[in-house]
Amino acid sequence: MTIAGRHRVASLPEVEAIPRMPAGFRAATASAGIKASGGLDLGILTTTGLPASAAATFTANRLAAAPVRLSRANLAASAGRVSAVLSTSGCANAATGPDGDRDQAILAEELAASLGVDASTTLALSTGLIGTRLPVDALRPAIAALAAGSLAATDAALAALGEQICTTDTRSKSASVVVELPDGAGALRRVIVSGVAKGVGMIHPRMATMLALVLTDATAQPATLARILGPVVERTWNQLTVDGDTSTNDSVLLLASGVAGAAPLETSPEAEARVAAAVEAVARSLARQQAADGEGATTLITCTVTGARDDVEARAAARAVVASSLVKAAVHGRDPNWGRIGAALGNAEVAGRPVAVDEARLEVRIAGTPVFRGQPLPFDKVALSARMADAELAVDVDLGLGEGAGEAFGCDLTEAYVIENSAYST
Amino acid sequence: MTIAGRHRVASLPEVEAIPRMPAGFRAATASAGIKASGGLDLGILTTTGLPASAAATFTANRLAAAPVRLSRANLAASAGRVSAVLSTSGCANAATGPDGDRDQAILAEELAASLGVDASTTLALSTGLIGTRLPVDALRPAIAALAAGSLAATDAALAALGEQICTTDTRSKSASVVVELPDGAGALRRVIVSGVAKGVGMIHPRMATMLALVLTDATAQPATLARILGPVVERTWNQLTVDGDTSTNDSVLLLASGVAGAAPLETSPEAEARVAAAVEAVARSLARQQAADGEGATTLITCTVTGARDDVEARAAARAVVASSLVKAAVHGRDPNWGRIGAALGNAEVAGRPVAVDEARLEVRIAGTPVFRGQPLPFDKVALSARMADAELAVDVDLGLGEGAGEAFGCDLTEAYVIENSAYST
Repeated sequence: MTIAGRHRVASLPEVEAIPRMPAGFRAATASAGIKASGGLDLGILTTTGLPASAAATFTANRLAAAPVRLSRANLAASAGRVSAVLSTSGCANAATGPDGDRDQAILAEELAASLGVDASTTLALSTGLIGTRLPVDALRPAIAALAAGSLAATDAALAALGEQICTTDTRSKSASVVVELPDGAGALRRVIVSGVAKGVGMIHPRMATMLALVLTDATAQPATLARILGPVVERTWNQLTVDGDTSTNDSVLLLASGVAGAAPLETSPEAEARVAAAVEAVARSLARQQAADGEGATTLITCTVTGARDDVEARAAARAVVASSLVKAAVHGRDPNWGRIGAALGNAEVAGRPVAVDEARLEVRIAGTPVFRGQPLPFDKVALSARMADAELAVDVDLGLGEGAGEAFGCDLTEAYVIENSAYST
Repeated sequence: MTIAGRHRVASLPEVEAIPRMPAGFRAATASAGIKASGGLDLGILTTTGLPASAAATFTANRLAAAPVRLSRANLAASAGRVSAVLSTSGCANAATGPDGDRDQAILAEELAASLGVDASTTLALSTGLIGTRLPVDALRPAIAALAAGSLAATDAALAALGEQICTTDTRSKSASVVVELPDGAGALRRVIVSGVAKGVGMIHPRMATMLALVLTDATAQPATLARILGPVVERTWNQLTVDGDTSTNDSVLLLASGVAGAAPLETSPEAEARVAAAVEAVARSLARQQAADGEGATTLITCTVTGARDDVEARAAARAVVASSLVKAAVHGRDPNWGRIGAALGNAEVAGRPVAVDEARLEVRIAGTPVFRGQPLPFDKVALSARMADAELAVDVDLGLGEGAGEAFGCDLTEAYVIENSAYST
């Protein structure tokens, strides 16, 4: 299947669902008292040498959290050079007013002083309850202690960071791809692209998503990373929805240390394409891991739309299907109620414009079984319902109108989602 | 509070939550075998004399059902003159292809022949499962029998029609307003505006809503009714959401028999304004009854937004709050988690454009308790949680940016919603 833009899903490299720390990065984590559970809630990622090149996308929510505001400002001030990332979990530091901005700035200064870097080259990630303040007095000494003694350039340190960013997640998410690229002097260098992500509720990314950190030891300018990241986010995290709510804290960071020794991506379009494919493979894997771990979810739903007028409409149509509460509840009930898929397609919009859908040309398959082709098709409901009990469900739609294609990732709506979200802050 | 356009909520007349059959209409209902439960599933509404003037709004879903396609075509062909409405429930006759259109046309011919009217002056309402065919052979004799012997111009007949259009509703919805208007010859005439509506799931109207039928014995041209109905639907049914899914069958019909003897609305702007206010009061009452009876719901949520840049943004912001799965689940848990309200406001859009929201100017009250004013406010969580146990919850938002105001109606998200929608067609 062809997916929008320069890269095809079919050509994406294989992903390992493990974290691999790329060369040039170190990380450390601790329990600093934000989470009542006592779990890991403070993390630091830093470079071993020069600042990394960076690109990022952030939430489109107009109540962007203090860490998002700080990261946006610092990325602009440093022109995409990042020495360190401060990660806190259990408190979103969102809707905290000017106090929240001051708290985040104090922690950035502490981090910068502890590592001997410029505060404007630091970013911040934070996730958790909206409207509560960070415990700054407890966090400052914890940051200093982590920076002084705990940083490690190991896969385990990246795995711990992947755990630290989690909140209601039931498991951590990680994905890695290794590619070999020329060094420009006749030899091949092993380049790692590795990511961790969190987020299983308030997930309906626009422009960006919940927290995701993608690291590579490839060599690239910030502008190159931005060129790679934009379309990747459009095709992966922006096609993920758990509950239709876009978080105040969504942030995706892509950092390149340049330590692997491969030639700069700017010297080879082929090398850039291979790294872009690796970044997309990592991003797609993480987004699917997030959908599968959606709050209360038991089934990962992947909707693939072909035959749309263009890729943008295909993605919007696919997203409308996996975002529909009624489709999600039907999947939970193993109910092949394709009428709800049709109704969701008929509602799909792009920026307020309807997506073109024609009942006479529409084809729908659930778990490979054709259920609609211009009109309802007969099918074995009992057999199809049984196949819907798998952990993954494919919904394939052909709109029959053009060459546009896209996919989206979601999960079923369960009683457990309601129970989990009925009692969170109190 | 000021609501968009010419009418103010504060000036709306009192509504009685009972059906009153306006002069000039008759109705009849029967059980014709569509619903497995044996409940009322066939209804006829007809005029006692000349065709009524009519205006209507229909779903924006691109997979509009066969009855919607028939009604749209007939309204255009008859220039807004309606002699009869055929109502079926338990089968949506949506996504049924050309066969569905043929079925609906056969039933319209049967209805027209039985009543001795032109088929192009008939409309159709249908609701129920998507993708199943109407039992035409059983319905034709049932229609003929109803038309021949059962039509009654009574309040009870309208009440039965209000029951007949229901599917997963737990109770029928009706609302009436009586106004006195001059007859143009020095006397006053009693004019009734009365409505019935259904719809508690797949409710997220755009342009129109689930089935609603508003009747009046006022005298008005179709164009006048359309001028009244458009803004009313914008402020009432288009501000109702249960689950974010827009149905394929949404239809709102406004019919005026002209039998009350009041002067034509076209002769008095004041009379038109009073009937418009009555129609809005009936529509708002029905929309709120639908929200309160939302699938699985225990709490009616009314979000009122003031201080928006304009009324359109206010309505979009209010709707974003009541549409948020996380807000809805928090209300179910009696959890005053106002951060989710803020996040929902920050995501509000109008036709793909963001609604202006500024954290520094934002004020939020839950059940009258201020919880945020530029920053989090201290409040008694236990006391507020106890107040959230009421059957109605008010969420009041002031954006502090302008004079725009609006409201939206929704309900909590419960385990019962998921259970109900996990097993529907099978």
